[in-house]
This record gives sequence, structure tokens and C-alpha cells, in this order.
Amino acid sequence: MAEHDIPRATAKRLPIYYRYLNLLLDSGKTRVSSNELAEAVKFDAATIRRDFSYFGALGKRGYGYDVEALMNFFGRILDQDTLASVALIGVGNLGQALLNFNFHQSSNARISAAFDINEDIINTIQAGVPVYSMGDLEDQITAQRIEVAIVTVPSVAAQDLADRLAKAGIKGILNFTPLRLDVPASVRVQNVDLTNELQTLLYFINNVDLANE
Amino acid sequence: MAEHDIPRATAKRLPIYYRYLNLLLDSGKTRVSSNELAEAVKFDAATIRRDFSYFGALGKRGYGYDVEALMNFFGRILDQDTLASVALIGVGNLGQALLNFNFHQSSNARISAAFDINEDIINTIQAGVPVYSMGDLEDQITAQRIEVAIVTVPSVAAQDLADRLAKAGIKGILNFTPLRLDVPASVRVQNVDLTNELQTLLYFINNVDLANE
Repeated sequence: MAEHDIPRATAKRLPIYYRYLNLLLDSGKTRVSSNELAEAVKFDAATIRRDFSYFGALGKRGYGYDVEALMNFFGRILDQDTLASVALIGVGNLGQALLNFNFHQSSNARISAAFDINEDIINTIQAGVPVYSMGDLEDQITAQRIEVAIVTVPSVAAQDLADRLAKAGIKGILNFTPLRLDVPASVRVQNVDLTNELQTLLYFINNVDLANE
Repeated sequence: MAEHDIPRATAKRLPIYYRYLNLLLDSGKTRVSSNELAEAVKFDAATIRRDFSYFGALGKRGYGYDVEALMNFFGRILDQDTLASVALIGVGNLGQALLNFNFHQSSNARISAAFDINEDIINTIQAGVPVYSMGDLEDQITAQRIEVAIVTVPSVAAQDLADRLAKAGIKGILNFTPLRLDVPASVRVQNVDLTNELQTLLYFINNVDLANE
């Protein structure tokens, strides 16, 4: 089965598997069963076995999976060997935190350029990342071959920005604003809505009988 | 149908509906169709109509939904009239950003206490929120009747902290560490894994033929 035929839910679990396998390898473990994996990553073992089967990674009964082989395999799928340059637009509190964080646990992506309208920080380096003016957006995206943008601007500015990003050739947007962005089919948006996460959690703890997913 | 019988996916969309209805009301709009809602929140109209039907909120053909009535109704479900006190543990970069952010768009939750091991900030007020030592955790959770905790500590400290939180009576954890927490059934965990969001996005833009959700 070709890689691009795997279900979306499976694809979303790949980075989690990858990071856990990395951890196992660091701790000297050479093999792992789907039950052990299930215990660690909190998906059920049947889901894990099905996920792995999409990639033709079949464990051996009584042996399990070879940690290093599986990790290298997922690493290739996740493209861990190349480094993707990412732009961050909006260096407010959340933007600043993401610059400091800069996806340390990930080896395949790095924020290489930040953008803001605040003259006080334009042309400075924040947490190792240069901050450019908004006027430099298209030029830097082209020069640095940036394909992914993190949007941490105020909601009112988000749609105009998304239009500019799409025109500049951005393929993926990690959207931290509560606004649902309107983008062409060539752009994929991943929404990270922190208020929504909290409200959903509050809703669930106040409605404890709700069926689990 | 009782509120607690609604599907999890529907429950997760409620805060999004609620916020958008709020926006509509602010802009003076009194009614809205499921198609307009669909365009704005990017779920399809059939999904929206099905979601609303769980709550007995049925639009009238050719009229749509009454914005204010629907908003008040969802507000009650989401418990917008009460203010939930939330603890934040780990005032690093991300923790600090969340304190500053403090879920402004939400009217039903507020971080009321932060905790850290850093002596330099213990007993100070950060972004309006008092920072306590980790020794004060259980006392403050009890005193402030806190039921939800945001975990922004380093991964290595996360499981021990989750154990303490569960013992202290916390019912919900918003987990920003990549670690999958082991908690009793009485505690609900919502994972916000920023590295994972970015890696998933990278994966999808590199595998463009992947079926959309």
C-alpha cells in the first residue's frame, strides 16, 4: 500500500510512535511488543498493529517489533533527515514562547524566520531567530524556501495574512488563532485552538457520563 | 436526548459554534443558516444540522437559526456563566505565554494560580497570576476549588505531577508535554502536543494525495 493511502488518523499517530521508539532506543531497548507500545502511547494494541500493517511493518509473534528498524522506517516516512524551515508570524506572547520552544524534540523542523509589525523587535534576533518586518514576508519565504507558516497574529489580521501566505506559495499553516481560515486547496491548515481545548476539557469534566471516544 | 449522550466529536465543536455565534451577535446579526455557519466554521452544513439536532435546536426552513437563542443555549451547555479556576504548573516559556494569554476569548475559565520550582518567581505575580511553590500545590487546589490543571513542566516531571494532581482531586489535565500521562479514570487528559501538530502538518504537505478527513 502506498504511503499516501494511509488513513489520516494513522498519519497523526506516526510522530507519536516515532518519538516513543526514539526514547526506547535511547534507553537501550531493542524490541517492543504492540502491547508495550499500547501501554506507553495510550492507543490500544489492535490500533497499533493495524497502523503498522499499513506500512507493511509486521511484528513477529513472540518477538514483537525491532525498535531500531521500526524507528528508522518511520523516520524516513516522517522525513526526519531533512530540515524544514518554518516561518512564525506574530511575535506576541504566544509567538515568543514558540520561538523559545522551537520544536526542540523534533529534528526535522525549525523556525528560521519570524515576522512582526512591532518596530522594537524588527531586525533583532529573538531566541536565535531573526525577526523581519511584514514587508519582507514574501522575499524571505522565497529565499528560505519556507513551506510552513505558524500564525500567531491577532484574529483580525489572520485572514489577510493567510491570503498573503497562500499567494507566496506556503503549503501548510499551523493556525493558533480561533479564526477558521479560508485557503485554497493547495494549502493545508492545522488548527491549534487553545481556548477550545480548555473549553472542551471543561465541558467533558462537567459531563462525566459522556461516552469516551 | 440528554446532554451527556451527545457524541464526543459534537461536543468538541460546541465551543467553536459558541464563539462564532457570539461574533455574529456582536456584529448585529439576528439569524443564521446552517450553510452560512458551515462557510464560517468550515464544517459541512449537514454536520452542523446533525450536531444541533442532538440538542433539539432545529432551524426553521427559510429562516435558519435564531443567533441569540442558539448562543444562549450553547452558553448554558458550556457553562459560560460560571468561572472555572485553573492551575498552571510550570512557568517556563510556554507557561508564561499561557499566563499572558489566559484564555481571554473564553469567559468561563481563568488561570488563578501558577506553580513553579524557580525561587526567583515564587511569591511574585506574573501576568496577574500569583506564582506559588510546588509545596503549596495541594493546599491551593483545595482552597481555590481548582478542578483543571495545565501542565507545562518538562516531560521528565510530568508523570509524578499527574499523580499528585489526581490525588489532589483534579478532574481535568491540559497536557502540553509530549508524554502520555497515566491517570485514574476520574481524570480526563487533553493532550496539546505542539511538536506533533507541526510534524503532522509537515507529513501531510509532503504527502499531498492523502485522503482528507
